[in-house]
Amino acid sequence: MNITERLRKDADDIWKEIKEHPFVVELYSGGLPQDKFEFYILQDYYYLVRAIRNFSIISSKAESIDVMKDVTEILHLEAHSELQGYEDFLNRIGYSLEDAANIEPIPANVSYTSFLLSNSSLNSFEVAITSVLPCFWSYAEIAEYHSDKLKDNHNDLYKDWAGVYSTDSYLELVEKLKNLVNKTGKDHEYEDLKDNFITASKYEYMFWDAVYNKKKWPV
Amino acid sequence: MNITERLRKDADDIWKEIKEHPFVVELYSGGLPQDKFEFYILQDYYYLVRAIRNFSIISSKAESIDVMKDVTEILHLEAHSELQGYEDFLNRIGYSLEDAANIEPIPANVSYTSFLLSNSSLNSFEVAITSVLPCFWSYAEIAEYHSDKLKDNHNDLYKDWAGVYSTDSYLELVEKLKNLVNKTGKDHEYEDLKDNFITASKYEYMFWDAVYNKKKWPV
Amino acid sequence: MNITERLRKDADDIWKEIKEHPFVVELYSGGLPQDKFEFYILQDYYYLVRAIRNFSIISSKAESIDVMKDVTEILHLEAHSELQGYEDFLNRIGYSLEDAANIEPIPANVSYTSFLLSNSSLNSFEVAITSVLPCFWSYAEIAEYHSDKLKDNHNDLYKDWAGVYSTDSYLELVEKLKNLVNKTGKDHEYEDLKDNFITASKYEYMFWDAVYNKKKWPV
Amino acid sequence: MNITERLRKDADDIWKEIKEHPFVVELYSGGLPQDKFEFYILQDYYYLVRAIRNFSIISSKAESIDVMKDVTEILHLEAHSELQGYEDFLNRIGYSLEDAANIEPIPANVSYTSFLLSNSSLNSFEVAITSVLPCFWSYAEIAEYHSDKLKDNHNDLYKDWAGVYSTDSYLELVEKLKNLVNKTGKDHEYEDLKDNFITASKYEYMFWDAVYNKKKWPV
Repeated sequence: MNITERLRKDADDIWKEIKEHPFVVELYSGGLPQDKFEFYILQDYYYLVRAIRNFSIISSKAESIDVMKDVTEILHLEAHSELQGYEDFLNRIGYSLEDAANIEPIPANVSYTSFLLSNSSLNSFEVAITSVLPCFWSYAEIAEYHSDKLKDNHNDLYKDWAGVYSTDSYLELVEKLKNLVNKTGKDHEYEDLKDNFITASKYEYMFWDAVYNKKKWPV
Repeated sequence: MNITERLRKDADDIWKEIKEHPFVVELYSGGLPQDKFEFYILQDYYYLVRAIRNFSIISSKAESIDVMKDVTEILHLEAHSELQGYEDFLNRIGYSLEDAANIEPIPANVSYTSFLLSNSSLNSFEVAITSVLPCFWSYAEIAEYHSDKLKDNHNDLYKDWAGVYSTDSYLELVEKLKNLVNKTGKDHEYEDLKDNFITASKYEYMFWDAVYNKKKWPV
Repeated sequence: MNITERLRKDADDIWKEIKEHPFVVELYSGGLPQDKFEFYILQDYYYLVRAIRNFSIISSKAESIDVMKDVTEILHLEAHSELQGYEDFLNRIGYSLEDAANIEPIPANVSYTSFLLSNSSLNSFEVAITSVLPCFWSYAEIAEYHSDKLKDNHNDLYKDWAGVYSTDSYLELVEKLKNLVNKTGKDHEYEDLKDNFITASKYEYMFWDAVYNKKKWPV
Repeated sequence: MNITERLRKDADDIWKEIKEHPFVVELYSGGLPQDKFEFYILQDYYYLVRAIRNFSIISSKAESIDVMKDVTEILHLEAHSELQGYEDFLNRIGYSLEDAANIEPIPANVSYTSFLLSNSSLNSFEVAITSVLPCFWSYAEIAEYHSDKLKDNHNDLYKDWAGVYSTDSYLELVEKLKNLVNKTGKDHEYEDLKDNFITASKYEYMFWDAVYNKKKWPV
């Protein structure tokens, strides 16, 4: 097994919970209340902007120019076409980018992105790139896992949103990230990579749960 | 009002909740179940080590040598006498430093410290030092606010633990941190300082709540 | 005067020396010995790779997403088309990218890039982006200043190399960088920006001088 | 051989040149013109302040709390007693700390410290701590190597300055740094450690040479 196969296996219990979370299930089957979906989409702006910043940090830590070229490719994709796609979707549900930028991020959002950013700032390239993998990879796995549900889903909004994560270009992006982990990760640091992959997976679950329940700051 | 007075005022609602949190109240009155206290103390190791790392980052960002001298003084205090005091206390309740180092940090602990570390890594000295202030300052304010309760508290463990936060040396440390915020913070960046002071105060509340309820990872 | 106009004026004495440096003059007139040119081109690889890393760091420090989008655009350009153009040119003079990667960087190269990287790592976005400006901008100004010489230059290698720096796309890149400095720089930090613009300009001169004289490590 | 013994051996040619540099020889024999010595001492302030900042960064990168405790000890020493000793010496030759702070750093000073700071910011703890070792260690070796000369040196200023580097407390500091390199450096990264040890040694030589010849910016 290569590193990403080991990581995926070691996180299996958590990923099962992610795939069965009501937010995810109802989104694919079409039954998700729209206010929950909108809450999620509006929170996503803060996440996306911090993710772009995070890829900048990760790029600065690449050991070789070849790895740096791959990361700058992903970074550019996120900061331009991904952000543009997000804006288009946002407009479609009646919000502007400015609306999204003014939303107060919930604790799960601040916590997850702080975890990613502090990891990238303080740790190695391998740890940093491994930490961002659960988000990208699990979206693809969710899309595949629930693809049947999507056929009976009559909510165009949800279908279009979900459709992105089974496109060839998205799956290529996930492969590129997995390759970066396998190429740069060293066996002797597997425990460290695993800890961070697991923690990021837990945060991924907690993010779905927090937007489903609209969990704001308790004080 | 200087900057720290404004910050304190703007966070007043949150600080009231912190001071009235059951963990804090029961600790000072003596009624806190010991298992909850031990849970807290064992979690504290991860927090303390990350706080020391955080002060190292903050020191590296000091604009002037005078500010850097102040921060290295605090950093040295944390890494040596504070850590030693923690170890002594830990031994007294039957645990070693190694026990504490092997405890899995709960989400509130990872999230709060990630927030602090990402802030210090990515933002200015002023923002970083402002973000650590709520932890230190609120401990002193709690100690003063509940000082009467402590007189009737017959749990020596809790009395000794709480006693630290009303000593002259602790109050001097808090003053030193407040001075650093007032000296380096600029008025035009007050909103940014406030946001971070408020968020750190919220995490401070959530940390008390998480250890009181032993909130572990949901998956 | 906006910030970049003030910076350019305050560095004028240094820029005059840059434009009149024998390496620059002989390159545009065609009289530069080819071994000096090759020495320069081979050193340039280390500079370029460190410059790409530097733009990654700078991107991570952008305050707004709009600024980050601009920087990721430049970063992508440097890491892909700029690096590709460099490799094509290298092949034309009989070297591979691997050859260039194996060249020991001279002190002026290590020093200049270390200055840029430490600046970006430790200082604000404004200081970091201001520090990279002299390299890009002076290349454009040199190309304009010596454009007449180029007409009588019969060395195709030098003509093609120099031709890049008067293309519309290159001039647009310089404008984009100047706009970033003018947009993010604040008047109250002008002295700090100036110090770094001047130091980078001095290193720019020293780099030309070092490659012209092939100044290696003294020990 | 442990790592520091290998590093020392691999840098032997450079260290011979350092020990025989006229600045060093004349300082220990007493013949160094005082204006050269003063030039050196005044430049040293910028170096010292950047070295303290550098140790802050290095501390933030320590993997274990034990290593962090060692580094914070050194950092505190540098920022307090070392800086105080420097100020006392400065006063003795008729300058204030403010005078030294207003001196423009020469290229060798900016370059060497930028190399150290960019290294610490971008690389691992091991690389960062290895890069600061040549400065500390070579001062001790110089003091031992020229100890006979010092007996016939009648310049109290030079004798007192040089005397510091053969004291037990200084030699302990050097041992502590060597231990940190040996404890954290891994064999598989030796080439990387060596490159940085060698480059720092070269900069060490160039710093002596630059202050002896008062080499300012060429433009």
